[in-house]
Amino acid sequence: MAEPTTVSYGILGCAERAKKVAKAILQAPNSSLGAIGSRSIDKAKDYAQANEFPPSTKVYGSYDEVLDDPDIDAVYIPLPTGLRLHWVVKAAEKKKHVLLEKPVAFTVEELDKILSACECNGVQFMDGTMWLHHPRTTSMEEFLRDPLRFGQLKEIQSTLTWKVDENFLKNDIRVKPELDGLGALGDAGWYCIGASLLATDYELPKYVTAQNNAVKNEAGVILSCEASLHWDDGRSGNFRCSFISDWSMGMTATGTNGTLYVMDYVIPFKTDVASYTTKLPGNSTETEPKEESVTHIVKNELPQEALMIKEFSSLVDGIKRLGLPTEKKWQTISRKIHIVIDAVLASIDRGGEKVEVP
Amino acid sequence: MAEPTTVSYGILGCAERAKKVAKAILQAPNSSLGAIGSRSIDKAKDYAQANEFPPSTKVYGSYDEVLDDPDIDAVYIPLPTGLRLHWVVKAAEKKKHVLLEKPVAFTVEELDKILSACECNGVQFMDGTMWLHHPRTTSMEEFLRDPLRFGQLKEIQSTLTWKVDENFLKNDIRVKPELDGLGALGDAGWYCIGASLLATDYELPKYVTAQNNAVKNEAGVILSCEASLHWDDGRSGNFRCSFISDWSMGMTATGTNGTLYVMDYVIPFKTDVASYTTKLPGNSTETEPKEESVTHIVKNELPQEALMIKEFSSLVDGIKRLGLPTEKKWQTISRKIHIVIDAVLASIDRGGEKVEVP
Repeated sequence: MAEPTTVSYGILGCAERAKKVAKAILQAPNSSLGAIGSRSIDKAKDYAQANEFPPSTKVYGSYDEVLDDPDIDAVYIPLPTGLRLHWVVKAAEKKKHVLLEKPVAFTVEELDKILSACECNGVQFMDGTMWLHHPRTTSMEEFLRDPLRFGQLKEIQSTLTWKVDENFLKNDIRVKPELDGLGALGDAGWYCIGASLLATDYELPKYVTAQNNAVKNEAGVILSCEASLHWDDGRSGNFRCSFISDWSMGMTATGTNGTLYVMDYVIPFKTDVASYTTKLPGNSTETEPKEESVTHIVKNELPQEALMIKEFSSLVDGIKRLGLPTEKKWQTISRKIHIVIDAVLASIDRGGEKVEVP
Repeated sequence: MAEPTTVSYGILGCAERAKKVAKAILQAPNSSLGAIGSRSIDKAKDYAQANEFPPSTKVYGSYDEVLDDPDIDAVYIPLPTGLRLHWVVKAAEKKKHVLLEKPVAFTVEELDKILSACECNGVQFMDGTMWLHHPRTTSMEEFLRDPLRFGQLKEIQSTLTWKVDENFLKNDIRVKPELDGLGALGDAGWYCIGASLLATDYELPKYVTAQNNAVKNEAGVILSCEASLHWDDGRSGNFRCSFISDWSMGMTATGTNGTLYVMDYVIPFKTDVASYTTKLPGNSTETEPKEESVTHIVKNELPQEALMIKEFSSLVDGIKRLGLPTEKKWQTISRKIHIVIDAVLASIDRGGEKVEVP
């Protein structure tokens, strides 16, 4: 049998956020950084040099050249959300597998066009949500699915906030309606909603209600919001995402038997080890609480970004070398998160009204 | 000047929850356990023996005898909520100072009758919320009021849940509408709402909305509920209280500059020392979070129950010996918590409708 394919990646654009992924491509097995393309060749050259790309990485003065390069198997697209549909469709038509930054689109309708383009061209789709590829996340999922240790979910709280500076509030793409119009909801909120869905094993909520305290900038982009998700049996999720609060990160899932708490769920404090805390059905009583939590340490062979690339390369290899079908798991997760985002956005726009999730 | 009064306490009823307070009366300075009264003299005798009350503690076969005893200065009333109005009014008329278990009444209207009886008779009122008397709470308040370290409050989350057994669900007074009809909202929820108000320096929210997932027993008593409190400027509080979830306790206050987290806020894990965690404006960024929290350790000379008794005795001493007026701080806090409870209850009864706080 042939050797596993070394998947060659092209990066579209010189985004700040692409640096981590470029590094991850260089770290991951079966992966190579084939090309970087920017609308400005000089910018691309500077970026390649500043980030120590190997001499083998081709540098192009346009995105199209990356897509036209027959040596490139897959593209990583960190372009602003407003440009994604256009470039994903082009990339898919050129049979490039697509690793797409989140939020993947403005709406589910737009995402469906993206997914349809990938589907029709037989290319793999995955969004750039790194934490799902960390072995800690797998370990947490095992705990959350354990009827004895965790029981039935009652509530999942998730938070991701940080405070941006004045420059960001004026100039960053994430506060521009035509570029990243979902603002904090599409960025920080993406992770909070993802955590809620992870806790319910990706069951969509029945309805959502936004709190009536969303903050928008003058152009109408969300800088901060909160919402509740509601499933059957009174299970609920509460999340809060913000660009204008102190930095905070955390998810707490409370079950009938146990509790799971993790602080740095999106980006672990350390790159090679991460932890989470659980409380099992214990001896804490109403009047005599006991400190009974257990910290679980999970080591990771590679940083979570590199584990994401490794997984994506493995899927591409399966398609190219073994003729396997594309893996639908990742697009299903992206789509469910987007369905919830759309519902939360609708609820915010209606002053916190209850919005059914289709 | 005369020596500080040793305040002599009488306890009405042999409640399970009175054990801790009885012990605290014996531990606190300037306090003595003068009498215990029960509707059954045998039960009172057994209770006094089982809890090692000193020989000087008088044992009565009725509550009235405690109130008629001229040596008793103050009464601790742990009777079910449904009996409190009657016995507080009687106690106040006998000029006994009143330490009352929470929830202090069924409604604010009822509480106002209680407070009025105390007022007219010049006796001190305090409810039995112990954690407010712990020096850790004072230290947390200093942090929350600090414009540099904490900034402006954005969100306060508070939780208190535990899982009761079948026997409790059938027989405990806290699931009987005529005895403790507020159920988990009046019990665990009392602390959650108290934490929210503490974080806003006791500013009442503008409105509340309950989540549409409250669980009630067949008699209509709340076993579990969640709600959001809303203040001006988008400040929000989310709480969850339950008798039917895994044990969990915690409050997280997020400000524009810093964050405060404490797990065991209601009952510290240890009786002589407690801690809370803060995060200051630090170096955590969106892409590079850093573990920067600081744990603050606060020692306490006495368990928080005894500190509550010490404070109450000191107020009674001030009134008796120095002719000071009664301290209104404690009744103001009790009343505000009750106003919020009433609003949450109204929202639950209206399926989660927004309810303005008067």
